[in-house]
Amino acid sequence: MHAQLTELAELVGGKLVGDDQTINKVDTLQNACSGAISFLSNTKYRKYLTDTHASAVILHNSLLDECPVSSIVVDNPYLAFARISSHLNQKPAALPGIHPSAIIDPDAKISSSAWVGPGTVIEKNVVIGAGCFIGPCCIVQEHARVGDNSRLVANVVLCAYVEIGQRCIFHPGVVIGADGFGIANDQGVWVKVPQIGTVVIGDDVEIGANTTVDRGALENTVLGNGVKLDNQIQIGHNVCIGEHTVVVAGTGVAGSVKIGKHCAVGGGVGIAGHLEITDHVQLTGMSMVTKSILKPGIYSSGMTVAPNIEWKKNHVWLKRLGDTNKKIRDLQKQVRELMKPDE
Amino acid sequence: MHAQLTELAELVGGKLVGDDQTINKVDTLQNACSGAISFLSNTKYRKYLTDTHASAVILHNSLLDECPVSSIVVDNPYLAFARISSHLNQKPAALPGIHPSAIIDPDAKISSSAWVGPGTVIEKNVVIGAGCFIGPCCIVQEHARVGDNSRLVANVVLCAYVEIGQRCIFHPGVVIGADGFGIANDQGVWVKVPQIGTVVIGDDVEIGANTTVDRGALENTVLGNGVKLDNQIQIGHNVCIGEHTVVVAGTGVAGSVKIGKHCAVGGGVGIAGHLEITDHVQLTGMSMVTKSILKPGIYSSGMTVAPNIEWKKNHVWLKRLGDTNKKIRDLQKQVRELMKPDE
Amino acid sequence: MHAQLTELAELVGGKLVGDDQTINKVDTLQNACSGAISFLSNTKYRKYLTDTHASAVILHNSLLDECPVSSIVVDNPYLAFARISSHLNQKPAALPGIHPSAIIDPDAKISSSAWVGPGTVIEKNVVIGAGCFIGPCCIVQEHARVGDNSRLVANVVLCAYVEIGQRCIFHPGVVIGADGFGIANDQGVWVKVPQIGTVVIGDDVEIGANTTVDRGALENTVLGNGVKLDNQIQIGHNVCIGEHTVVVAGTGVAGSVKIGKHCAVGGGVGIAGHLEITDHVQLTGMSMVTKSILKPGIYSSGMTVAPNIEWKKNHVWLKRLGDTNKKIRDLQKQVRELMKPDE
Repeated sequence: MHAQLTELAELVGGKLVGDDQTINKVDTLQNACSGAISFLSNTKYRKYLTDTHASAVILHNSLLDECPVSSIVVDNPYLAFARISSHLNQKPAALPGIHPSAIIDPDAKISSSAWVGPGTVIEKNVVIGAGCFIGPCCIVQEHARVGDNSRLVANVVLCAYVEIGQRCIFHPGVVIGADGFGIANDQGVWVKVPQIGTVVIGDDVEIGANTTVDRGALENTVLGNGVKLDNQIQIGHNVCIGEHTVVVAGTGVAGSVKIGKHCAVGGGVGIAGHLEITDHVQLTGMSMVTKSILKPGIYSSGMTVAPNIEWKKNHVWLKRLGDTNKKIRDLQKQVRELMKPDE
Repeated sequence: MHAQLTELAELVGGKLVGDDQTINKVDTLQNACSGAISFLSNTKYRKYLTDTHASAVILHNSLLDECPVSSIVVDNPYLAFARISSHLNQKPAALPGIHPSAIIDPDAKISSSAWVGPGTVIEKNVVIGAGCFIGPCCIVQEHARVGDNSRLVANVVLCAYVEIGQRCIFHPGVVIGADGFGIANDQGVWVKVPQIGTVVIGDDVEIGANTTVDRGALENTVLGNGVKLDNQIQIGHNVCIGEHTVVVAGTGVAGSVKIGKHCAVGGGVGIAGHLEITDHVQLTGMSMVTKSILKPGIYSSGMTVAPNIEWKKNHVWLKRLGDTNKKIRDLQKQVRELMKPDE
Repeated sequence: MHAQLTELAELVGGKLVGDDQTINKVDTLQNACSGAISFLSNTKYRKYLTDTHASAVILHNSLLDECPVSSIVVDNPYLAFARISSHLNQKPAALPGIHPSAIIDPDAKISSSAWVGPGTVIEKNVVIGAGCFIGPCCIVQEHARVGDNSRLVANVVLCAYVEIGQRCIFHPGVVIGADGFGIANDQGVWVKVPQIGTVVIGDDVEIGANTTVDRGALENTVLGNGVKLDNQIQIGHNVCIGEHTVVVAGTGVAGSVKIGKHCAVGGGVGIAGHLEITDHVQLTGMSMVTKSILKPGIYSSGMTVAPNIEWKKNHVWLKRLGDTNKKIRDLQKQVRELMKPDE
């Protein structure tokens, strides 16, 4: 795709400053050459602006003076860049059809405008909506429903009865609706608890490679509209995640947790079962959450690295904080005693 | 399925209090309606008991007075619920057979009562036992053996020579028997160490979606009977896990660790290589284990979240505990000096 | 395979001490029997040396006196063992060919000496080099390139335009080149940023089961020659990892991180985005890295387990270190006051 700068400025509601030009790609400030449009959002990259060979740069008004080439001036350059890049990098619509090697149950309903790739298995009573792209080697189990224009990239498993909305994108290795971890103890031996809920996923949800979302035990696991999950995340049974919440890679959310809307959960976070996280909470990476968080804000835990030899010394004290505080109490007592006026 | 309360009470060795009724499903106290049986195990949900519309509730004798409907009284309501739910939600037995799209080596031995799904690959000298369900797009590599009535849900990989017992359930994305991480250093360059052991898994083992269990380097990796692994767990080469131990999602167990029987390892835990964890050990979520644990009990580590601004202030001190304790020692010395009787 | 000890000694540049013998397998000191060669590298296993039934042991000169059988004496016994085991456990070369159930685009170029397994999907313009082994149910998407003698074990996904070098080994469930986690916020709603870079992987790279490496947003994600990644690792978009660096299971590396050469990153580590880790850095397991590390060395963080009851007591103080230090400052002030000479 290519486009004129005037069109692109219009697309993002920005102001074109400088000559109109034909743009055919996006690139970084450092690597862009003629025909490319770049952007400046993170000030760390400001140093590359004056020497850029891009044909145009998307930036904030405050940086306009430093820009040696045409600019599209907007309030949120990264967002404008996202829209322009999407415009210039449109994937050609998949041709509809079903690859002859796909294995389709006769009782599945597949829209005539959907594509089903090679080696994919579609079981009975599945519904695949208009414009869907079901890539190679996916498995869509019985009674699952995929909303219009959703995309299962490749090797995605949707278990039985899972429902997903429109315009979702699921990356390779995603497993939606496997059994949750429900077990009851019978004198030391674990007995499986049937997982008879399912997973219901809203519109515009993107899920990263090898992420797993378990089906509910009795009620459903639910992901709201616009939720974005990165790779290798584990979402336990009966979790509910509110609209437009994002979760970074490697995080684990235990069963029955309720996470609100517009939250941002960092990578490698662990959230214990049955907790509630309210709307607009941010958790920084590797946080450990064992109590509900009912007030919006940023929360953190953990300890950052030090040279091993320092960490080792420090660690000795880290586990003796009770002793440390006992020593302080003793000192306080002694000092109080010493400060008493002589009798 | 449906059943009479009298039958269900008998099934779990419980006492029916109230009228017999026909039960056709399980549900939560809050959502249950006529025909459903519910249970009360976690006291958090006690508040829903008096208003439940369930036809019956499984509960402990101590709560009987509060129950407005028929009850099945037992000592362990969650366990009784598990058994009753299993009874009411029996999956119809898969019809035996081999899907025409499955690719079966002529030297594989597949029981005539097993099912092999579409797109599944079974290599030479594999043995699939009676009543097994091998779902779609699984790969069972040469010489692997699957015990009677085991279920590979979909997209499961069993590598060469892996052996699994009876009644196992492996969820989508599970990989059993990939090479362990064995490398030797040759002046900065890493040389692969062949991984010539395999994985031997007992009976009644359930393994969650996208969990990986590596094959042994020389000896085998072993999971005992009744072990239950949640999703996204990594089990390193030569690990042995004792019978009826459970591991929650996201945990990593490094090579050659021996974990005892009846342990419970929380989610996101890390266990360093070559350690021994004795029987009946519980590790809470995100624990970091760097030494063997030879005494049963509950063990924990880590730091829970605080508002980011508090965490930041606290963190400054967190890494200076040596200094803190030096200050205390200095104070102790000074105070001792001050407390000396005047000469 | 079998070989004479003289050959094996020559293979590893070691000295044979004792009788020559025919060796047909490798095994541990404890389990080895006649015909097996073992090794002693970790001194923890020294106790098994005197009673070994191995026909020969690979060891360091310093332990020669304790060895009851023939020895191959080398400086690095584990490395020599790796080479000898590789020699004795050579996999028979796969016969070239394409399984009839593989789905190959007519515009793919597959070397006549490569093997493509059952159910595998190869899209248009893919190039598969000489001697490659593409196992069952892999997906190699359009324009991806696989260097000579590389091995995709089974169920591996290479997304479009991914390039991998020679002699790579990717284990089941690996996903290379899924979209990175690039999203821009539009008044609370997340907008996808197209991920138009790819992944470029060098020679001799091994990647463990269910590990994911995301494609670059604009530039590429790059893994250098000889990099070894364990299982269940997440590598974010635009990460670069230098040659001969190893990463242990469960680690997450956020976007745009640069890791140097010859690093060793422990398991369960988290590295925040846009950081630089210089060459020869070691990070111990579960480390949390939020700043660049510009000096080689070993770095650590985290807290190891204690009995739960001790941890709980300690944890109360862990989050009040500011208070603790305030108390110390107060004490210091009081003691200074007390130490003032009387006026």
